[in-house]
Amino acid sequence: SAPQDLDLEILETVMGQLDAHRIRENLRELSREPHLASSPRDEDLVQLLLQRWKDPESGLDSAEAFTYEVLLSFPSQEQPNVVDVVGPTGDIIHSCHRTEENVTGEQGGPDVIQPYAAYAPSGTPQGLLVYANHGTEDDFKELQTQGIKLEGTIALTRYGGVGRGDKDVPVIQPDSTDRHWLGCAEMTFAVARGTAINDLCKHHLAHGKIGLSWLPQLRKEEEEQDISGVERGSYYKYFGDPLTPYLPAIPSSFRLDLANVSGFPPIPTQPIGFQDARDLLCNLKGTLAPATWQGALGCHYRLGPGFRPDGNFSADSQVNVSVYNRLELRNSSNVLGIIHGAVEPDRYVLYGNHRDSWVHGAVDPSSGTAVLLELSRVLGTLLKKGTWRPRRSIVFASWGAEEFGLIGSTEFTEEFFNKLQERTVAYINVDIAVFANATLRVQGTPPVQSVVFSATKEIRSPGPGDLSIYDNWIRYFNRSSPEYGLVPSLGSLGAGSDYAPFIHFLGISSMDIAYTYDLSKTSARIYPTYHTAFDTFDYVDKFLDPGFSSHQAVAQTAGSIILRLSDSFFLPLKVSDYSETLRSFLQAAQQDLGALLEQHSISLGPLVTAVEKFEAEAAALGQRISTLQKGSPDPLQVRMLNDQLMLLERSFLNPRAFPEERYYSHVLWAARTGSVATFPGLSNACSRARDTASGSEAWAEVQRQLSIVVTALEGAAATLRPVVDL
Amino acid sequence: SAPQDLDLEILETVMGQLDAHRIRENLRELSREPHLASSPRDEDLVQLLLQRWKDPESGLDSAEAFTYEVLLSFPSQEQPNVVDVVGPTGDIIHSCHRTEENVTGEQGGPDVIQPYAAYAPSGTPQGLLVYANHGTEDDFKELQTQGIKLEGTIALTRYGGVGRGDKDVPVIQPDSTDRHWLGCAEMTFAVARGTAINDLCKHHLAHGKIGLSWLPQLRKEEEEQDISGVERGSYYKYFGDPLTPYLPAIPSSFRLDLANVSGFPPIPTQPIGFQDARDLLCNLKGTLAPATWQGALGCHYRLGPGFRPDGNFSADSQVNVSVYNRLELRNSSNVLGIIHGAVEPDRYVLYGNHRDSWVHGAVDPSSGTAVLLELSRVLGTLLKKGTWRPRRSIVFASWGAEEFGLIGSTEFTEEFFNKLQERTVAYINVDIAVFANATLRVQGTPPVQSVVFSATKEIRSPGPGDLSIYDNWIRYFNRSSPEYGLVPSLGSLGAGSDYAPFIHFLGISSMDIAYTYDLSKTSARIYPTYHTAFDTFDYVDKFLDPGFSSHQAVAQTAGSIILRLSDSFFLPLKVSDYSETLRSFLQAAQQDLGALLEQHSISLGPLVTAVEKFEAEAAALGQRISTLQKGSPDPLQVRMLNDQLMLLERSFLNPRAFPEERYYSHVLWAARTGSVATFPGLSNACSRARDTASGSEAWAEVQRQLSIVVTALEGAAATLRPVVDL
Ligand SMILES: [Ca+2]
Ligand SMILES: [Ca+2]
Ligand SMILES: [Zn+2]
Ligand SMILES: [Zn+2]
Ligand SMILES: [Zn+2]
Ligand SMILES: [Zn+2]
Repeated sequence: SAPQDLDLEILETVMGQLDAHRIRENLRELSREPHLASSPRDEDLVQLLLQRWKDPESGLDSAEAFTYEVLLSFPSQEQPNVVDVVGPTGDIIHSCHRTEENVTGEQGGPDVIQPYAAYAPSGTPQGLLVYANHGTEDDFKELQTQGIKLEGTIALTRYGGVGRGDKDVPVIQPDSTDRHWLGCAEMTFAVARGTAINDLCKHHLAHGKIGLSWLPQLRKEEEEQDISGVERGSYYKYFGDPLTPYLPAIPSSFRLDLANVSGFPPIPTQPIGFQDARDLLCNLKGTLAPATWQGALGCHYRLGPGFRPDGNFSADSQVNVSVYNRLELRNSSNVLGIIHGAVEPDRYVLYGNHRDSWVHGAVDPSSGTAVLLELSRVLGTLLKKGTWRPRRSIVFASWGAEEFGLIGSTEFTEEFFNKLQERTVAYINVDIAVFANATLRVQGTPPVQSVVFSATKEIRSPGPGDLSIYDNWIRYFNRSSPEYGLVPSLGSLGAGSDYAPFIHFLGISSMDIAYTYDLSKTSARIYPTYHTAFDTFDYVDKFLDPGFSSHQAVAQTAGSIILRLSDSFFLPLKVSDYSETLRSFLQAAQQDLGALLEQHSISLGPLVTAVEKFEAEAAALGQRISTLQKGSPDPLQVRMLNDQLMLLERSFLNPRAFPEERYYSHVLWAARTGSVATFPGLSNACSRARDTASGSEAWAEVQRQLSIVVTALEGAAATLRPVVDL
Repeated sequence: SAPQDLDLEILETVMGQLDAHRIRENLRELSREPHLASSPRDEDLVQLLLQRWKDPESGLDSAEAFTYEVLLSFPSQEQPNVVDVVGPTGDIIHSCHRTEENVTGEQGGPDVIQPYAAYAPSGTPQGLLVYANHGTEDDFKELQTQGIKLEGTIALTRYGGVGRGDKDVPVIQPDSTDRHWLGCAEMTFAVARGTAINDLCKHHLAHGKIGLSWLPQLRKEEEEQDISGVERGSYYKYFGDPLTPYLPAIPSSFRLDLANVSGFPPIPTQPIGFQDARDLLCNLKGTLAPATWQGALGCHYRLGPGFRPDGNFSADSQVNVSVYNRLELRNSSNVLGIIHGAVEPDRYVLYGNHRDSWVHGAVDPSSGTAVLLELSRVLGTLLKKGTWRPRRSIVFASWGAEEFGLIGSTEFTEEFFNKLQERTVAYINVDIAVFANATLRVQGTPPVQSVVFSATKEIRSPGPGDLSIYDNWIRYFNRSSPEYGLVPSLGSLGAGSDYAPFIHFLGISSMDIAYTYDLSKTSARIYPTYHTAFDTFDYVDKFLDPGFSSHQAVAQTAGSIILRLSDSFFLPLKVSDYSETLRSFLQAAQQDLGALLEQHSISLGPLVTAVEKFEAEAAALGQRISTLQKGSPDPLQVRMLNDQLMLLERSFLNPRAFPEERYYSHVLWAARTGSVATFPGLSNACSRARDTASGSEAWAEVQRQLSIVVTALEGAAATLRPVVDL
């Protein structure tokens, strides 16, 4: 009999059964109450997931909760964090909002956690205010150059890191596609006191902003009401449980002494909102800030220190920042559910979404969880009816404590490192399912491109017209592919959600799927209620995705990808699609670094050869697959070939490549400091070596990084050759 | 049709065709000339191997040489290294032998390299002689305690490391089993000058002896002739090419600056022979050395510094050691040959032996190479006749530059890390095939035990009687197994030959096979002509294994193991045999470390649980295999199960467990400083923590190591569970 393969009828059935209304009902339930990681409501949702996944009519084959004991950070319930302006006589002249305004009745209540900077240490510094732009090392150097003594001051910073200097400009414009999305302004607030700022710079500030706030502008008419929204967030530098790097946070595991934990902000930090930030910043005295430091608060930004005498506050007023955050060991659970594969049960298609939110989290992450539950219902129902069982196993995951730094997913990969690395076909992440309604947006590694394309070509796009998701997508994000012509462009995976440990630590081909805005119409970083108390069901239901058609589109896209990966006889991972990426990385390296490298007698020749070898082997493998597909290959033959496809991504992993970058082992997708899309290890090493002499350690590191990527590419090419070749 | 499985007729055919006479002829050719790594004769042997493996009648499917550019160390040809006694007026009173005596006409000639300590730096120190026992840190401390100022002295040390203090006693006794093996004495010579000895200790001496020599006593009557043998060897601390850790030494690879290479001996070092060592040591003055420092040279060992006035040398005489070693980048090749698997060509059974020798290397390594060539001839002939093709691929490897530190095999694993790690079923190493004729000796990890037992039960032991190799083996090395009763005991794998990168760096189940002595009759470290010019064909042919029956036994054992691993439908890797090892490691940890850990409030409870979990899962998997074997499982089912067996060893790998131990990632077999066979990371960490207070960093490291091994065992158990279990 023919081997089990993708069944297009089943696929169509699944597409047809994914129901927008049910997604809406899921979301209503999921976002009914705030469900901060490890809270009682978070635990309730664990039970909800288990109940759904164990349902005899629509559940999976089995489901289980896996609990870790992890270090989280919370503001004190007794003593709220405050930011005050204190007059010369010690009287409080101005207090920043401690909570967001309760506009719809949903923004208040005992379970709405105060805005705070998770993992910022407690402390009650007071001093003159300075404005420090993004709070980067260069920004603080600039202040010092301007003659400002930083010691003892409080720094106000705005959101945005190195190279993102213009992102704070609010873009307020009519928008036809991204309904209700109007624009945003970003404002960051950070405090520094009692520590030499140079040490701070060295230690931490180089890694970006400390403290941030957010202006939600739901609708123009609501602007004044909702202006109090403040963006919560984790300020931990790495990901995973801070006390157990590389070890699962099971109760018995070794935990670092707090004194030895690195990656926490060094100073008390508190986010504030747009209104408060404007009140503080627009009253500063001192030199006018550089042009690139100016923003959209409607005043000229000055550097301080201290307030101008003719403003709202008296000239000697200081700012007091009192932070009472506490670190706590808490239980946080992942929920895992599985559909056993019928033929290759040891191959896992892994689909994950986090469960925890900062407040109600209707968008983040419950839009994704609502989709997850609808997907598992539809597949579970077919399963329980006996209509279908996939060729490979499908694993659904609901991650805990993502908001604190991808903790649940990271601990999972630490606990089951080998099992997952050996058997996982691909990881599909849906965090926020719907940012906005313009278009699909997919980030992923090249081997997943073709399956995403295949899936999206067959699904109708929401909204007017009769375009496929693919055809709509290509209008918003596209690139010219040497091989395929104009195609939608996949973004690359950073570390913004739970795919990070899978791609960077385990080397599993991964993707992240969402519906999002028309980026030509907004330079918004993210949707306005992100991580605020305004991210509620009504917000989604009334403004973001009424009718839930974008949610449905994401469910269909993810569902089709899951089915294609789990049911296709030949794995739909097209490894030859790495060739274009490598070629473009190589060209970028040649253009951006070639001359510099030549000056230091470093040749890119071996890298050119390695890329060429990869291209040739990948193309030849593609040929062999085509030939095999025309015949009637036996399942073992196809399994061997599929193993080559599945494991290709692993060969780009080198746990010794970036010893200081925790978990980052993928030599092609590790974090890059420069803006040019090229080999990150090489690019970062060049940045550090640029101003040193030939023969320096920094230049030796450039050569080492070059050899690391050459070895990875040559090794990858070797895995693509016919398996009997030496 | 039934799936291809082990064919007992083919197995019998192979056993019958492995021919002692042909092995002898191979050895005669291989050891005709010295074939030091990268020498012209070494290159000739590369060609010989390629020719054999490409032979149309008896060759493999394909064969290829892979060349690396590696850093080797050689003595100067113009300026030989010397060790002289220099009188007070500067005249040379005594010169140690610069070459070994040309006794049989084979020990001389331009290609016989002078005895030297590879990688020892050049230099010409001169000073008073001291005797420093094994040259360990403790030994030098003892000398300082005795009031001896070490600076400016020359240290004479003898072979043997920490905990091997009694191995220098020569055991000269009649021996019925180990023909011609009479005994040995060990003597080491090292020099220290111009460097503060404390720095030396800190840097290097803790890692063992620097410099060594060897007394070959082929036969009692030849004693006076052959006493000039000196043991060559590599004094590099790590393995692999010293300039390219973790990168393959292809020409384009980044190479460390020599100044940044660690692991070379810090001071000039030269090995000398027994006679010269006796002349020097027996003439020392000063305090009598401690009892444990005494040895078998026929005099009382004194500490020095300097010679006694009534001895052979005048009292003020000094010792001059002039070393002119040079580092050179040289080309060294591995030769790889493959037999393509018929059914699962992407599964590799890898068999390796090194090719390079110090001089003629008839025993080391050519006894193994002679066996390798006979194995490939017999299998190749069946292949070319069309009689047989294995289920899985068989890869034969002839490694280069092993003597300098496992260089060829290490570079190979660096170049093809992922491909090998994903696909290699097991690695079988034969270096020296025959040390002596008493018994088989196998070192290996537990999963290979059963296949070695199966193979050896079916092969007749050489020598009188009708015992199987297994039944003979059990007489010499045995242990009482809780599960099986009395069985031969497998030794554990250190890093003494090319299996090291496979087991420690890649986590591939490995074994090392040889015929060897009756250890109850000798405490010899190794055979007498080891690494000397006396290791010649005649030595093997006349004394070591006349008739080559032990060679044949090794060929049959290895051949049977190769066939069983490559042809069996179910992989004969019994992972449940790890349970006994883990249980015994656990018991040893409890006995040896339990009380100490308890004092520091560290519980072994999680380790107990993890071992129990492993035992249960391994047993359950064994049950499932038995059940499956009774049915008629399809090849994909068996493949999935075989993958669990093949990959079990990988789950013990943690590249972050021992960051300072280059290549050592296997948490069960990493180097252990203590003598108790237990979890090495835990044991080593306890040794370092023992004298520190609770709460020290050293105790934190103990807890980290405990968690690392618990995580590895839990992770391993998870890979053994049914693949659909979460
Ligand atoms: Ca952890
Ligand atoms: Ca290397
Ligand atoms: Zn999220
Ligand atoms: Zn979030
Ligand atoms: Zn050897
Ligand atoms: Zn050797």
